[in-house]
Amino acid sequence: MSAFNEYPSIEKLKELAEKPYDLSKEGNLTPKRVNQLKSEALNLKLLYGAERVDEKTLEALFDLAKEVNVHEKMEAMQAGVVMNKIEGHESENRMVLHTAMRDFFDQKNASKKAKEAAALAYAELEKLKRFLDSIEKEGFTDMIQVGIGGSELGPKAIYLALKAFKREGKRVHFISNVDPDDAAHVLQQVDLSKTLVVIVSKSGTTLETLTNEELIRKKFIDEGLSPANHFLAVTGKGSPMDDPERYRESFFIWEYVGGRYSVTSMVGCVMLAFALGMEKLLDFLRGAYCMDRVALEEDPTANLPLLSALLGIWNHNFLKLPTTAIIPYSQALSRFPAHLQQCDMESNGKQIDKQGNLVDFWTGPIIWGEVGTNGQHSFYQLIHQGTIPVSVEFIGFAENQYGEDTRFKGTSSQEKLLSNLFAQSIGLATGQKSDNPNKFFPGNRPNRILLAEKCNPYTIGAILSYYENKVAFQGFIWDINSFDQEGVQLGKVLANKIMDQFAKKAKEESFEEDFSLGAVYIDQLKNL
Amino acid sequence: MSAFNEYPSIEKLKELAEKPYDLSKEGNLTPKRVNQLKSEALNLKLLYGAERVDEKTLEALFDLAKEVNVHEKMEAMQAGVVMNKIEGHESENRMVLHTAMRDFFDQKNASKKAKEAAALAYAELEKLKRFLDSIEKEGFTDMIQVGIGGSELGPKAIYLALKAFKREGKRVHFISNVDPDDAAHVLQQVDLSKTLVVIVSKSGTTLETLTNEELIRKKFIDEGLSPANHFLAVTGKGSPMDDPERYRESFFIWEYVGGRYSVTSMVGCVMLAFALGMEKLLDFLRGAYCMDRVALEEDPTANLPLLSALLGIWNHNFLKLPTTAIIPYSQALSRFPAHLQQCDMESNGKQIDKQGNLVDFWTGPIIWGEVGTNGQHSFYQLIHQGTIPVSVEFIGFAENQYGEDTRFKGTSSQEKLLSNLFAQSIGLATGQKSDNPNKFFPGNRPNRILLAEKCNPYTIGAILSYYENKVAFQGFIWDINSFDQEGVQLGKVLANKIMDQFAKKAKEESFEEDFSLGAVYIDQLKNL
Repeated sequence: MSAFNEYPSIEKLKELAEKPYDLSKEGNLTPKRVNQLKSEALNLKLLYGAERVDEKTLEALFDLAKEVNVHEKMEAMQAGVVMNKIEGHESENRMVLHTAMRDFFDQKNASKKAKEAAALAYAELEKLKRFLDSIEKEGFTDMIQVGIGGSELGPKAIYLALKAFKREGKRVHFISNVDPDDAAHVLQQVDLSKTLVVIVSKSGTTLETLTNEELIRKKFIDEGLSPANHFLAVTGKGSPMDDPERYRESFFIWEYVGGRYSVTSMVGCVMLAFALGMEKLLDFLRGAYCMDRVALEEDPTANLPLLSALLGIWNHNFLKLPTTAIIPYSQALSRFPAHLQQCDMESNGKQIDKQGNLVDFWTGPIIWGEVGTNGQHSFYQLIHQGTIPVSVEFIGFAENQYGEDTRFKGTSSQEKLLSNLFAQSIGLATGQKSDNPNKFFPGNRPNRILLAEKCNPYTIGAILSYYENKVAFQGFIWDINSFDQEGVQLGKVLANKIMDQFAKKAKEESFEEDFSLGAVYIDQLKNL
Repeated sequence: MSAFNEYPSIEKLKELAEKPYDLSKEGNLTPKRVNQLKSEALNLKLLYGAERVDEKTLEALFDLAKEVNVHEKMEAMQAGVVMNKIEGHESENRMVLHTAMRDFFDQKNASKKAKEAAALAYAELEKLKRFLDSIEKEGFTDMIQVGIGGSELGPKAIYLALKAFKREGKRVHFISNVDPDDAAHVLQQVDLSKTLVVIVSKSGTTLETLTNEELIRKKFIDEGLSPANHFLAVTGKGSPMDDPERYRESFFIWEYVGGRYSVTSMVGCVMLAFALGMEKLLDFLRGAYCMDRVALEEDPTANLPLLSALLGIWNHNFLKLPTTAIIPYSQALSRFPAHLQQCDMESNGKQIDKQGNLVDFWTGPIIWGEVGTNGQHSFYQLIHQGTIPVSVEFIGFAENQYGEDTRFKGTSSQEKLLSNLFAQSIGLATGQKSDNPNKFFPGNRPNRILLAEKCNPYTIGAILSYYENKVAFQGFIWDINSFDQEGVQLGKVLANKIMDQFAKKAKEESFEEDFSLGAVYIDQLKNL
């Protein structure tokens, strides 16, 4: 039996879920409510008046947090306790210390392990600074980051989020897919003699990444350039990629930083420092660090990631909404939902608890989303009037990044953007009565808004950490291991079998009997 | 009472859903099955051995198709019958004739309305050819398409899909979001003197698009350029944008082409012809046309869009899977899932049937997805081992686009890509037994593969039409109107109210009382 259903507050929450707060009822979503159901930390506000909660619901959710001891669990995580494990079964048995990658601003964390990890991380940052200073005069204009999963999604999302702040004449590109067209397209755009290539793989064995590395090395050699002058490595110490002869410089990551939590490690930092400079990189890390401290607040109304985690649990486990849409009203965050899709779904898309029992409740939701206002012209029809209600997490900023704007019909573009954001939050909650069934909106689509002044390095660091910690809190509450990913192994094993068959086929060796299912699929490639 | 639950086959399907085909059982996913559960049309194969269907299920689904008269409905749609309506209520009351945008290759459609629409579409294509010929010597290198929703998602998805085939020195950019940073970022990359700007809005009143147009026009004027030499319009005849004084050339669309179905109209064609040339554009349209003909096949095993629609209904309404992931194993299709998200969710995210009754079953699923192999390193954990099963539609190609590839460890990148695709299809279906609960994969995650030779203009035209027609078939079966979008109206109304308040605030007029909910949200922008 899993712990989750045994907490005393669960029965209370189930009971409350039979009649959740009705936002569609006239007078139930009031200005007063919007003003009250609001939490603030750093320069962020979380507005949750449009969630289907009342005082009793919040009280029960806060009780749940206490019963689970989420506070102690977050402290333990940030202190380097071994939390990535399944009791009684073979598992990774690792600390979870991505927070240490930015935990060197005021050294409040007393744990020896966390301090050691933070010192190692800081030493890499110093190495990075020295390296960038040393190449300053060589005039590199472009950097290609080669990596997949956490080595691409988070870094790319943050790069795009902060592109407005990049240094003149610096550009970053990403190659991730083993599809050779991905690399071909990027390589068309750069002058290789002025390009650095960062190969990112913690294990040093990621097939897609090594394949792309090989392809790009060939390109350099074809152009008479020496890859050793252009290639950098980000990898684990002692991995097959830890080879100073092949790389101009190597930066290290550790097994206690999971790929999907690695943006603030060298996985993200090398590229961000190249693009933005060290100062802005440090602002970004400081934002993440400060939100990690917020995640340690005991009061859930002051702990934004925890509050968001609890609201998510309410919507998912009690109101039974299978998916969450994350919709930033900011073009700069165009890939942020894709990063959170990994961060959340790979962490919490689990079927067993930490004792290895199959769970009898829903773990992580399906996460999806696109930026607003664009989504309004796409899938909003379904979230307003479809048959499967969706919970929505909006992200908004008071100011835009570039400072360029235009007044048209009395308002600036930024004001239009915000008006749409607020309008959607209200409309999804209240709905609209109508005699025409096609103009009837049922409302009660729960949503919340994370609001900040501007999408800048500090703020985006804080927002990144807000989500990382939200995901961790939900894992604590479900009592699952949010830090492994056994679910990706089966596909790898099967893919290797089929690759062997392709390889044998290329050598005209017989392969039919090896793995007959693979063979029949390969056979389908004929007569297309 | 809605028609859907009244069809005789529905009871049978409900009964079969109690014990669906068990793909995880040893010996149930066999090479023979993979070879048998396969349909082919044009140069496409649909492999559905990894769906949870057996002969009885397929028979019942084919019965359902007959009971609904899907064939007659598809014929009626393509012939120009007024299908965009709700009986007895105010509604759009329009024909649905996006298929006519490409219905001029062999004139098999006997309907007068469809012929007229096709002739109009063809005349626009001829106008487009004349226009492109006339500007050939002016050396335009860049085109910016300004539009949102269907005026951006589909065109951008197809542009990226076919970028490998574009003419030397031609580039296309898209500006959609009212977020001013979106435009600022694109404008940094182009030489305006060599740039054409296409403003796309059927109504000629889309706020985001007009706002961005204004911003870009100012840029041209600031640089001493005359917008009238650079701006083109794609709009409805007689719309506020139909103004030859402001645009160098105008191309027309019609009310019977919905935004999300407009890629093959001038909404997509102007930009695609500029980027690819007329010949490749015609290949693309021919692919879509040919698949429209396939959608008219009476035999469901020969009618790929119908077969896919029926399998979707089975997964969604009977196996109760709330979402569908669309995962192309092709980097070129990076934005194709976002286009299908609109096409499907805006079409079928409906709560009433065509008589205006609230439905008592699930209509359109939530559509999401990213390209493979990338997704494998992201959300696959959840689809393999999560608690909410997901149905998956894979898309794959035997060959890559650029022809550049590298052999590494015995296989080419393209072979690695395909190996992963096939492996995932098998692994999701069969799962894996294990004594370690963390290495246990339950399997029975239904999926199918649409396989083609190569992502080229003809093929991508066919795949686009495959999905458009799949969505239409599902709408026919649910008896809903897939062609309106009343669900987007409430947000617009509320956003306008809040914009008024911003405008008044800018003029320092009092606005507190107008819409107090809006006011309290605007108030939140303080003290960030």
